[in-house]
Amino acid sequence: MKLFLKIKYDGTAYAGYQVQNNAPTVQKVLNDAVCDLFGYECDVTGCSRTDAGVHALCFCATVQKHGESSLETTIPCERIPYALNIRLPDDIAVFYSSWVNDDFHARYSVISKTYEYRINNSRFKDPFTVNKAYHYPKPISDSDITLMNEAAKLICGKHDFSAFMASGSSVTDAVRTVHNCDVRKSGDEIIIRISADGFLYNMVRIICGTLLEAAKGSIRSESINQIIDSKDRKCAGATLPAHGLYLVDVKYKD
Amino acid sequence: MKLFLKIKYDGTAYAGYQVQNNAPTVQKVLNDAVCDLFGYECDVTGCSRTDAGVHALCFCATVQKHGESSLETTIPCERIPYALNIRLPDDIAVFYSSWVNDDFHARYSVISKTYEYRINNSRFKDPFTVNKAYHYPKPISDSDITLMNEAAKLICGKHDFSAFMASGSSVTDAVRTVHNCDVRKSGDEIIIRISADGFLYNMVRIICGTLLEAAKGSIRSESINQIIDSKDRKCAGATLPAHGLYLVDVKYKD
Repeated sequence: MKLFLKIKYDGTAYAGYQVQNNAPTVQKVLNDAVCDLFGYECDVTGCSRTDAGVHALCFCATVQKHGESSLETTIPCERIPYALNIRLPDDIAVFYSSWVNDDFHARYSVISKTYEYRINNSRFKDPFTVNKAYHYPKPISDSDITLMNEAAKLICGKHDFSAFMASGSSVTDAVRTVHNCDVRKSGDEIIIRISADGFLYNMVRIICGTLLEAAKGSIRSESINQIIDSKDRKCAGATLPAHGLYLVDVKYKD
Repeated sequence: MKLFLKIKYDGTAYAGYQVQNNAPTVQKVLNDAVCDLFGYECDVTGCSRTDAGVHALCFCATVQKHGESSLETTIPCERIPYALNIRLPDDIAVFYSSWVNDDFHARYSVISKTYEYRINNSRFKDPFTVNKAYHYPKPISDSDITLMNEAAKLICGKHDFSAFMASGSSVTDAVRTVHNCDVRKSGDEIIIRISADGFLYNMVRIICGTLLEAAKGSIRSESINQIIDSKDRKCAGATLPAHGLYLVDVKYKD
């Protein structure tokens, strides 16, 4: 059996999830904690490669003994989050653990992921959302939110999302199914929520930049179909900054 | 006329509001910003002395030219928050400015202040509320919240709050009027809100520690009157940590 973990992290201090040389990553910190707890080398596999500065309210990972397909321990499963949390820095926390079969894969067994993008729409900068939301000070009204939701509806469905993929990506099949995309406003906070069976590189941040153009009126919501059909990155909106992005849910088969 | 400002700050990096030697304070940072903007020495007067680590969603201050009772500038008042914010670090922001008469005093003209104390009641530590809420992992149920609110009601009114004042305080008149005190829970977050005409040193944090004892059942809500009557600090609950405390509102005469 592999160990399955759900974790939260504030991505501000990290160069993303995935291990890289000479930069702090969530995977490296998590790997160090599990090795220290179990007393042997482990392999940690994550559900996704989040970018530098991106946060997670629910990131899923599996742990197995290095070079093997499972992990053995006498520590009761329900104690593992506590035992790991005391080995993790304040900005990473485990909040769930269970056992999964050896054939379960943290990344390839995913059937859908949900991201939220948070925009702080207050006139002045907010000390409490620095690095936690994108500050966009121009007022976004309720009717602007309606325009964003009209555009968001057209994003939903099975499409070739090449226009919403960072230029230079090596992915050849850009067809993805967006299950849901909506925008809500609560006080000064605007949250864009997107679920899909998979995401291209920067896809959420480009969709959010495009929805913001719809709010400003510089892209008409009806144009979304044309942008999709163009398959041209230049037709979509800007890539919004990483620090507003949160991975919030991951669904697996069964 | 004096310049009146409302500011927000994340107090994590500061040794409190009030200037002190060899420690970063909100007042010092604010003073440097106004001096830089107006081009001469200024005096900044705050509504309160918040402790190290305490936050503010609405802290009020006035600015006058050093040694004088007012301030002169050609900068339009509504531009001042923008002009100051570019001179302030990310953790301090001005969100309102106006002119007030020379006899207005940021501290002595206050008629009531409101604080909130935030408790994170999740089982596991939360990377997004580190230094922003007190982590209390033992579950607090809806009926515990009812007990806290019963105790909170007995805190309200005009009382000698000596039992809720840090021992060693030099204040001789400990009579204060608490206008409102209530507790609400939303998800994993518990918020205690207290308004009064004034607060003794550590008074909010001791009241909150006492309400938490009421939730745990180690202080019966009916005992609040006895604790008040004792005027003995040892009878009340623990002083909760500073990082859960927020100054959220300040009311002035007129």
